[in-house]
Amino acid sequence: MKFSPILSELINSLKCLPGVGQKTAQRMAFQMLERNREGALALSDALRNAMEHVKHCSQCRTFTESELCDICASPIRQQAGVLCVVESPQDVMAVEQTSEFKGLYFVLMGHLSPIDGIGPAEIGLDSLAQMLDSNPVEEVILATNPTVEGEATAHYIAQMCRSREIKASRIAHGVPVGGELEYLDGSTLTHAFSGRRVL
Amino acid sequence: MKFSPILSELINSLKCLPGVGQKTAQRMAFQMLERNREGALALSDALRNAMEHVKHCSQCRTFTESELCDICASPIRQQAGVLCVVESPQDVMAVEQTSEFKGLYFVLMGHLSPIDGIGPAEIGLDSLAQMLDSNPVEEVILATNPTVEGEATAHYIAQMCRSREIKASRIAHGVPVGGELEYLDGSTLTHAFSGRRVL
Ligand SMILES: [Zn+2]
Ligand SMILES: [Zn+2]
Repeated sequence: MKFSPILSELINSLKCLPGVGQKTAQRMAFQMLERNREGALALSDALRNAMEHVKHCSQCRTFTESELCDICASPIRQQAGVLCVVESPQDVMAVEQTSEFKGLYFVLMGHLSPIDGIGPAEIGLDSLAQMLDSNPVEEVILATNPTVEGEATAHYIAQMCRSREIKASRIAHGVPVGGELEYLDGSTLTHAFSGRRVL
Repeated sequence: MKFSPILSELINSLKCLPGVGQKTAQRMAFQMLERNREGALALSDALRNAMEHVKHCSQCRTFTESELCDICASPIRQQAGVLCVVESPQDVMAVEQTSEFKGLYFVLMGHLSPIDGIGPAEIGLDSLAQMLDSNPVEEVILATNPTVEGEATAHYIAQMCRSREIKASRIAHGVPVGGELEYLDGSTLTHAFSGRRVL
């Protein structure tokens, strides 16, 4: 016996969600049918609405349904003179949660990865150049991930800044607060040592 | 900074899925927006279609968009004279995967739980009575879960069968094939001992 056609279709479609396999999709389908049809219909509407209307901010490339995202549209942010470059919209949220940074962002939506055909154009570096040229940016904080690709991307952008005489800085890597040395990978520990400061 | 309204709505709606919290919902939303808008739109349609059309089989109560599910509609199944009672549609799939059972099912969509106000009517025992009275059932196999509620439900239905002079049997509980004794809970091991067979 197979599931009825409509039910099969629902289970298959749920598998397009990241991290959702056959078993989880079944459990999701049955649970919504049994207990939350209202919620499932709301999700159906929210999915369609988002897929049809959410696009990229014309300045910083993060996701938004407006021409400019809230941050880019904020005069206070524009006047800060600082630009933070991150790989994804989730990274923007992570930085925002610290409430430390009050400047603008630029969201690469990825990182340089020549092997996958992802070059400067694919991560919007032409838009970033425009942003650097048209905004009074004094410092670019490079907050790409501490991976090989993230580092390479940071260095590439640092070069762009240098040619414009804009200061470029890289966020510090090291032992996470609350982290234990013994569980850290060697590369992080190397960063932690080379980035040490005199107390 | 918060997400844009449409994006927030999507993230919140994704949290109606079982096991999906804020972080997972964000990852799902961003990943679909970035890489799979087609899939997300298909999911939107599948959700609406299922919520609007999938109901319960009028005989066995499993989920289907037809009046009778495929199993109930099968003459071979009807003539088998055996009825398997399970708690959920997922249980039907689990039994079907063994290809051992060729009779009809009755899906309780739960189990007796007086403390939660779930009595015989809530798990469709009136429909089950009708099914027993109108079909040539020789044996009812009680395959509810081996929990306190599942056992109580099995005993209640066994009583219904007895009053109709229909044989009722309970699936065996014991050591799962490939399971190791030392990792089993005591209750399963007790079942395994009391249900032992002479070799
Ligand atoms: Zn923006
Ligand atoms: Zn049925």
